Amino acid sequence: MEVKKYRKENDYSYAFGAFPTIELLNYQPDKVIKIIIHSSFHNNDVMRVIKSKVDSSKIVVNDSIIEKLASKENIFVIGVFSKYISTISSNCSHLLLDQPSNMGNFGTILRTSLGFNIKDIAVIKPAIDIYDPKVIRSSMGAIFHLNIEYFNSYDEYVQRFMNHTKYSFMLQAKQILQETTFTSELATLIFGNEATGLSERFLTNNSIKIEHSHEIDSLNLPMAVGIALFEYQKQLNYRKKDSYGN
Amino acid sequence: MEVKKYRKENDYSYAFGAFPTIELLNYQPDKVIKIIIHSSFHNNDVMRVIKSKVDSSKIVVNDSIIEKLASKENIFVIGVFSKYISTISSNCSHLLLDQPSNMGNFGTILRTSLGFNIKDIAVIKPAIDIYDPKVIRSSMGAIFHLNIEYFNSYDEYVQRFMNHTKYSFMLQAKQILQETTFTSELATLIFGNEATGLSERFLTNNSIKIEHSHEIDSLNLPMAVGIALFEYQKQLNYRKKDSYGN
Repeated sequence: MEVKKYRKENDYSYAFGAFPTIELLNYQPDKVIKIIIHSSFHNNDVMRVIKSKVDSSKIVVNDSIIEKLASKENIFVIGVFSKYISTISSNCSHLLLDQPSNMGNFGTILRTSLGFNIKDIAVIKPAIDIYDPKVIRSSMGAIFHLNIEYFNSYDEYVQRFMNHTKYSFMLQAKQILQETTFTSELATLIFGNEATGLSERFLTNNSIKIEHSHEIDSLNLPMAVGIALFEYQKQLNYRKKDSYGN
Repeated sequence: MEVKKYRKENDYSYAFGAFPTIELLNYQPDKVIKIIIHSSFHNNDVMRVIKSKVDSSKIVVNDSIIEKLASKENIFVIGVFSKYISTISSNCSHLLLDQPSNMGNFGTILRTSLGFNIKDIAVIKPAIDIYDPKVIRSSMGAIFHLNIEYFNSYDEYVQRFMNHTKYSFMLQAKQILQETTFTSELATLIFGNEATGLSERFLTNNSIKIEHSHEIDSLNLPMAVGIALFEYQKQLNYRKKDSYGN
């Protein structure tokens, strides 16, 4: 087996760590190429799951490969998988990230988005490589549950998803999240790049800012996304119960 | 000037980067010992702020010190400051972190807490060193706006702040945040360690969980804190406006 450090051009990538590898096995079993185990790894529960999910011919014990691929980290299990193309659904709400540039943030956002049941993620290029092992690791394997689709431009996205109500989150908005009532069950929640935010063209009557004190510049991007998704899903899913309350 | 890599035992620490250093100068000017500038740093706006805030005798241009202290990072400005002791206020709501162990997370939490106007942070030991440069940097200097106080135990905290309503955030709670009405304007929002959460003793009628899909184990700690602070402050500060709405 030839093994190389991850490169964007490869048609395969790596899930580093037992937890992301199990997510890979559970949610994308047909994409698994190999599972590489370090000889010092003796977690029987994890080994049982791996053996139940993948043919034994695909399980390799090889310390030097692991050390080569994940030199600095404390990694004992690596899942090698074929990259795959997924498309987002027109029947579900979306998270749209315009030109995300930080892989750790992107992974955290994927994990949080899965947590709040938004499983369709649109990414406007230029953007990070969603299959970089850093993304997969910081998503804790959430990436394997999600549909993530690249678009060359926002226009290309809009043309395909005309019926989604577009909510753009930007500091220049007048409307604040703390006073927003979401009415659309088919929505796109839009967030800009870490450093530059969204451009003026996204400023509409459906633009929203998360009000915060003037003592900070901004919330970090994963935090803003998490708070917005929480509030949106809370309003849509708990509204009926809420109306029996105060 | 003798300069050493940061050690917990020192009575001084470092703010790495122009932005955290300006926060230091603005919010803790009397704690500043030196400002160290790299000779290749030519941001005139930043230099003007620094010169207006600190006596010129405290400004040092010295590349080798910067390279020694922040070897791997792209750092051009370092603020050296005396550590100081702050105490939290009995008139304000608190964020309480039980045994936090990740410095990056702790810094992100400080920045977010400042963003939602919770400026008094209680930390139960054992815990990370709040003055580690990694904390200061990931807080983006928010630490200099805040009161942060260590406690040896939760009991010690409770004895001093009897009147604060204690809300503990834990996965074992029955009450969910999405259906919680906060009534107390003097509250302590309590979160556990990244890996272990809060122990059973924190489970009360005021325990709350943030409901999320079963496809993730948990939200990450800064995300959980940010969402809880957002919801708490929204309810307290926007309630009156809200009652004119739906």
